[in-house]
Amino acid sequence: MFVERKVKDFINIDPLQTGGKLTEDARRMLVEWGDGYSVCDFCMGDLHGIKNPPIADFIKDLAEFLGCDVARVTHGAREGKFMIMHSLAKKDGIVVVDSNAHYSTFVSAERAGLNVVEVENSGYPEYKVIEERYEDAIVEARRKGDVVLAVLTYPDGNYGNLPDVKAVAEICHDKGVPLLLNCAYSIGRMEIKAEKLGVDFVVGSGHKSMASAGPIGVVGMFEDYAKVVLRKSERFKNKEVELLGCSVRGVPLMTLMASFDHVKERVKRWNEEVEKARWFVREFESLGFELLGEKPHNHDLLHFKTDKIYEISKKVKKGGYFLYHELKKRNIHGIKPGRTKSIKLSTYLVPKDDLRKVVQAFEEILDKYG
Amino acid sequence: MFVERKVKDFINIDPLQTGGKLTEDARRMLVEWGDGYSVCDFCMGDLHGIKNPPIADFIKDLAEFLGCDVARVTHGAREGKFMIMHSLAKKDGIVVVDSNAHYSTFVSAERAGLNVVEVENSGYPEYKVIEERYEDAIVEARRKGDVVLAVLTYPDGNYGNLPDVKAVAEICHDKGVPLLLNCAYSIGRMEIKAEKLGVDFVVGSGHKSMASAGPIGVVGMFEDYAKVVLRKSERFKNKEVELLGCSVRGVPLMTLMASFDHVKERVKRWNEEVEKARWFVREFESLGFELLGEKPHNHDLLHFKTDKIYEISKKVKKGGYFLYHELKKRNIHGIKPGRTKSIKLSTYLVPKDDLRKVVQAFEEILDKYG
Repeated sequence: MFVERKVKDFINIDPLQTGGKLTEDARRMLVEWGDGYSVCDFCMGDLHGIKNPPIADFIKDLAEFLGCDVARVTHGAREGKFMIMHSLAKKDGIVVVDSNAHYSTFVSAERAGLNVVEVENSGYPEYKVIEERYEDAIVEARRKGDVVLAVLTYPDGNYGNLPDVKAVAEICHDKGVPLLLNCAYSIGRMEIKAEKLGVDFVVGSGHKSMASAGPIGVVGMFEDYAKVVLRKSERFKNKEVELLGCSVRGVPLMTLMASFDHVKERVKRWNEEVEKARWFVREFESLGFELLGEKPHNHDLLHFKTDKIYEISKKVKKGGYFLYHELKKRNIHGIKPGRTKSIKLSTYLVPKDDLRKVVQAFEEILDKYG
Repeated sequence: MFVERKVKDFINIDPLQTGGKLTEDARRMLVEWGDGYSVCDFCMGDLHGIKNPPIADFIKDLAEFLGCDVARVTHGAREGKFMIMHSLAKKDGIVVVDSNAHYSTFVSAERAGLNVVEVENSGYPEYKVIEERYEDAIVEARRKGDVVLAVLTYPDGNYGNLPDVKAVAEICHDKGVPLLLNCAYSIGRMEIKAEKLGVDFVVGSGHKSMASAGPIGVVGMFEDYAKVVLRKSERFKNKEVELLGCSVRGVPLMTLMASFDHVKERVKRWNEEVEKARWFVREFESLGFELLGEKPHNHDLLHFKTDKIYEISKKVKKGGYFLYHELKKRNIHGIKPGRTKSIKLSTYLVPKDDLRKVVQAFEEILDKYG
């Protein structure tokens, strides 16, 4: 069976997808290393130690890239979060989490048997993490149990907000709580150095932000917690328990490696991406849409309140799906079908000319139904 | 960066790899769906419910193929085992496991905080699972704690032995213990129907036995345990906790789907593969090597005691690695470098002419150093 990907030549502004587009090297790597378990051709018992293909070298470079002592690949950012939570879990343990966190942060905690105490955001229209609230949240959580971890989402996928990591890290460490930074939308886009930011763990996503096939993620940490999270099996001395021995034993890892040089370069051009996102915000605001999240905005993940679209959807036959169909006609992909009250998109690595076409498309749609 | 796979045109008898070679459709699928998160183009919140590409239909077909009520894709067989163990885990819980089990079965139990009681095999030369011993093992285990699960490996990766599943299932169910069948080397090679075999769970491996890129696995179960293992998040009602919402959100799933028709056909020709394996055993025995594991053998995973190779390795400069270098010269891949006392290989889907070349290679090597 072969299935064609219908949207592959569309202008793609899907927030999940703009950072995961493969490089040409990565695409060639897929074919070269596609066969099952081919990365294990010369394995001596540990995925992260494989020399041919040069996985071991890559893992060392990755640790440096993340500003960490130790790095590992995981099946994705969520699997990295779970692995850390599961390692630190205790009876009646609690994780303190920003309320902008991705659903998989909450589900990871649930899977690890941990309760969650949320740090509320500032609400409409910016929904900002209020860094100082981590202190109250930890104090409150300690009345109920043992706080084993704090999580900060950097940026969150809903608003693309980038809170002050150092401020949160300082509070957590004053309180003796390790901090995990969820960088699914930053590692591979922006420079993220765990040491500089003062966090204990970082997780990232290959398919979301590192020009890699999915599913794959990265995790970085320091020696102290590596002893806990990457503990070895009692019976099988070279197998890391939380990785079940080995994690991404397949071709997504080869695409991550193939794109790594490109990724290291592109993070240096992050400012240009922020400028482009801000330009797009101005264009969209001039159509009467309102940006939700931080202003000025510091990330390509954009969330707009789109009252005009919602009003149209109430009148037209296709209801909420009219927008999807209008955009499809114009070869634009990535706005969730059915959404109208607010829409989310990403401008990351989308050429400005294509973004102009997106703006124009919305202008036309508003005109047509206005 | 691009890395060439040096052994891609070699005769491949690597036990990990013979069943994971991609079909042409799967190879095309890699390129078509390689970009990160492309399978999520039209996701409505649940990977297993995606209609375009037709993942939802595939998952239904997969459940039928496995003879189960419900199927899911996981990151691999080990991740399937962990997910089941983690769901059934209790304080002082115990898993009863055949001693031929893959290391990841033990590590999964360790990760889930479960103790293991082993069912010893018959020892040299056949190392057979003695089915009746499951009864004693369960009784013994119950003195120490609560037996939450039994695992049987079908076949094991060390000897390729295929125990009597129904006999083990009957014992487990008489004792009120659910049985998980690890089919990493059978699902995709042989017909496996959980219902017919009387087991509660099956796990399989896409990259090991289903002509798929890795990492990916499958898991099958029935409604009763699905309620437990595939329980939904309390907060996010459409997210399965053990999958952290979604599992294989990437291109390995598309290769599994691409190869599925081929896999359904090839399991019907399993007898031919067993015949070929037996022929190979006779050839290798005639060179003076001794088959370990069941005789007559019922699987393509072959393990030979190779005293003659070991004797040579003690005399030659390269030591244990001489065999690897001799085979490499002849474009033969898959015998673990350094191994000499015994070697493991697979004849699965390897053309008989290529297997003749393997036999001839060993004959030449013995002659050269004999």
